[in-house]
Amino acid sequence: MSAARHLVQGGLSVAVLEARDRVGGRTYAKQLGEGIFDMGGQFVGAKQHRIHALAKEFDLELMRVQQVEEGKKIQDFNGVQSTFTTAVPLLSFWKPFPLVNLAGLGLTVLCLERSRKQIPADRPWDARKALKWDRRTVSGWLRDAWWRPRQVSGMFDAVVHGMFGANASEDSLLNFLHFLQTTDGFQEVAEGQRFRFANGSQQMSLKMAEGLGERVILEAPVHEIAQDNDGVTVHSGKGAWRGRYVVISVPLPLVNRIHFSPELPPERQLLAQRSYMGSIVKCLTLYDRPFWRDAGFVGEVLSDREPIAAVFDNSHPDSGQACLLSFIAGKHAYYWNKYPEKERRDSVLKLLEGWFGPEAGKPTLYHEYNWGEQAWTQGCPIANFSTGNISLLGKEYGPPLGRIHWASSELSHEWISYMEGGLASGENTAKEILAIA
Amino acid sequence: MSAARHLVQGGLSVAVLEARDRVGGRTYAKQLGEGIFDMGGQFVGAKQHRIHALAKEFDLELMRVQQVEEGKKIQDFNGVQSTFTTAVPLLSFWKPFPLVNLAGLGLTVLCLERSRKQIPADRPWDARKALKWDRRTVSGWLRDAWWRPRQVSGMFDAVVHGMFGANASEDSLLNFLHFLQTTDGFQEVAEGQRFRFANGSQQMSLKMAEGLGERVILEAPVHEIAQDNDGVTVHSGKGAWRGRYVVISVPLPLVNRIHFSPELPPERQLLAQRSYMGSIVKCLTLYDRPFWRDAGFVGEVLSDREPIAAVFDNSHPDSGQACLLSFIAGKHAYYWNKYPEKERRDSVLKLLEGWFGPEAGKPTLYHEYNWGEQAWTQGCPIANFSTGNISLLGKEYGPPLGRIHWASSELSHEWISYMEGGLASGENTAKEILAIA
Repeated sequence: MSAARHLVQGGLSVAVLEARDRVGGRTYAKQLGEGIFDMGGQFVGAKQHRIHALAKEFDLELMRVQQVEEGKKIQDFNGVQSTFTTAVPLLSFWKPFPLVNLAGLGLTVLCLERSRKQIPADRPWDARKALKWDRRTVSGWLRDAWWRPRQVSGMFDAVVHGMFGANASEDSLLNFLHFLQTTDGFQEVAEGQRFRFANGSQQMSLKMAEGLGERVILEAPVHEIAQDNDGVTVHSGKGAWRGRYVVISVPLPLVNRIHFSPELPPERQLLAQRSYMGSIVKCLTLYDRPFWRDAGFVGEVLSDREPIAAVFDNSHPDSGQACLLSFIAGKHAYYWNKYPEKERRDSVLKLLEGWFGPEAGKPTLYHEYNWGEQAWTQGCPIANFSTGNISLLGKEYGPPLGRIHWASSELSHEWISYMEGGLASGENTAKEILAIA
Repeated sequence: MSAARHLVQGGLSVAVLEARDRVGGRTYAKQLGEGIFDMGGQFVGAKQHRIHALAKEFDLELMRVQQVEEGKKIQDFNGVQSTFTTAVPLLSFWKPFPLVNLAGLGLTVLCLERSRKQIPADRPWDARKALKWDRRTVSGWLRDAWWRPRQVSGMFDAVVHGMFGANASEDSLLNFLHFLQTTDGFQEVAEGQRFRFANGSQQMSLKMAEGLGERVILEAPVHEIAQDNDGVTVHSGKGAWRGRYVVISVPLPLVNRIHFSPELPPERQLLAQRSYMGSIVKCLTLYDRPFWRDAGFVGEVLSDREPIAAVFDNSHPDSGQACLLSFIAGKHAYYWNKYPEKERRDSVLKLLEGWFGPEAGKPTLYHEYNWGEQAWTQGCPIANFSTGNISLLGKEYGPPLGRIHWASSELSHEWISYMEGGLASGENTAKEILAIA
């Protein structure tokens, strides 16, 4: 949507073929109880200037997320529960832990921060130690560290679950470090959650689509793209379109579902085969009132307990509808749809009760959105790369293949996995085409 | 082909839809010079009883591969070249290496052998240490080992290249150990190369297809599979077929190209997204005579030099056509098609000259077969799993999904990545269907 908008502003004519019956992709808002809530991407950082500009242009209300700034938060790792009040849990003093673990945590963060600064955000494969970091998983690296911060690995499980929908046992350390570099470090990852849209972030796409008008064609999944010397023919469920260039903005693992003529080059297939979507289920529990605030809690939890990796106060500001948002991610989301609904609900409510007391177990409404069940994304929040691949094949993703150009949050050099990354990538791809069209 | 044959023998009627204009899949034979040579799978073990039975049934000549048994072989790792004469290079005394490296090599093999024996060949995810092994790559594990056998990692790079077409920096240690367990250890991996078909192993499929007659439909790529309560409809380039069950025998990463109705369950998509085909280019150099034998060489090399991982004497027994076969695999194969042909040829011949003398640089014919360029396999020899996935999702691969059954060398519990594994898997799947049909 971002690419289309910039291309139109640049004087080109475009058609946007959307597989779903709605725009917004990995952002999607739904009315629940008395509020509108995000089922997909929702957090916005203070420094994410593209989103702030869009919000201003379309007059969309961006609200501050209270918990980033003040109040008591919960961390629950390796069976040890405690509270913290700083913005970044990673840097807070961790009372129940012995000093040796606190030192281990400090060393871990220090190491990651030092390493990520050596990575060029736009060319992670060019980092001097790219291969060294890429042949390790995050959890493999943590467990082999000489300071052995075993009690810290639970926290990183939670972080990798939440940020990538992946498991620390599969995620390449280089993938993790590169992400950190595009957000400018741990401190900024927390800052990236300072705002959200009062009425859902899908509004951005809805407004952009409004501006594009009849150029946007819904329910038109693309199944074939043929390019020749003069242009590109895109075959969709709603017929064929012909153009000079095409921008593909579905995540890389889904590109495999499109037939290309001529075939994409082998090195590109290699990379696509090695990418996978993260797994995320969002669980929203609605309440009559934000009771957790009575006890001084801001409603935030980071945890390595099954199945919840993180909880946030997600109350709707306009209607006052109280809400807690729980993330079920990575391996905990793999088989989520296999359990009976009652079992799923019970396992979520039981953890919430443990953290926030008995009232948390009695929501007025319980709602889940499982991104793994959505045919046109097959997961969320982003496509990840397994070990050994960014270093050897990562550079294949961005550059155009003939008349085929690429846009996706995963391709951004800023805020990968955030909505800002998607906007940035769309903008860059539009510039790429406007320069040659 | 193996599944179809067993199903027909069991009294069912079948149709075999083949995407290519030939049968054989990852086996394919071509006439070069005066001999017929395998472009794909070719090695056969002494204990691979299914292949030996097929060879007998169809009267196909299986020949002994001389080098396994006798003569001087070359190993060339980390810039140190030496010769060995045992069947298993891994266990031979390694002269140019200091004692500490020899001890490291011994420890490495010992560790791997002890570990692999703890893995149930049919349920690697149930091994007690499955997650521990799965969150490490082969090269990550080697480099973190306390005995630090740095000079040994080159050998494992070559082994992982040759066996999986993958890189030790991406391959999950559990994936490697599981393979070792299905072949019954290092000794047997070498034994797995004791025979080959004198006139190409594709003959097996050709003969089986002959028996199936008009049941085999060529150039019929399947693009959609729809199942309902009564049966399955398979849509191909040559029209639609209806049956009670369907067996899918393409490697897992290629299954993504088929549209399923209803969609495959999310946990199955997760696994498919996490599988990737290995990368292999076979280079055959033909000569007037097997000159390397004059110097006592049997023509075998194992190496970590770019680009060749392994060389074998591949001379054609009937015609006497002398031939060396070089494997270019893993990362060295990724960009192979990008280099000009002369550059590719020169880089191969230069290494062969270094090992076997100037005559090796003057072949009468140079021929390459790049499996990465083949649309209907996109790689060879097998589909691999990246870190953290066999442990968490591996069990999703084998079981039928409704009326859809699976057969593939990757699914075998014996000789994964060998042709025997493919025959075994086809046989098992046929039994599975015959039990319910």
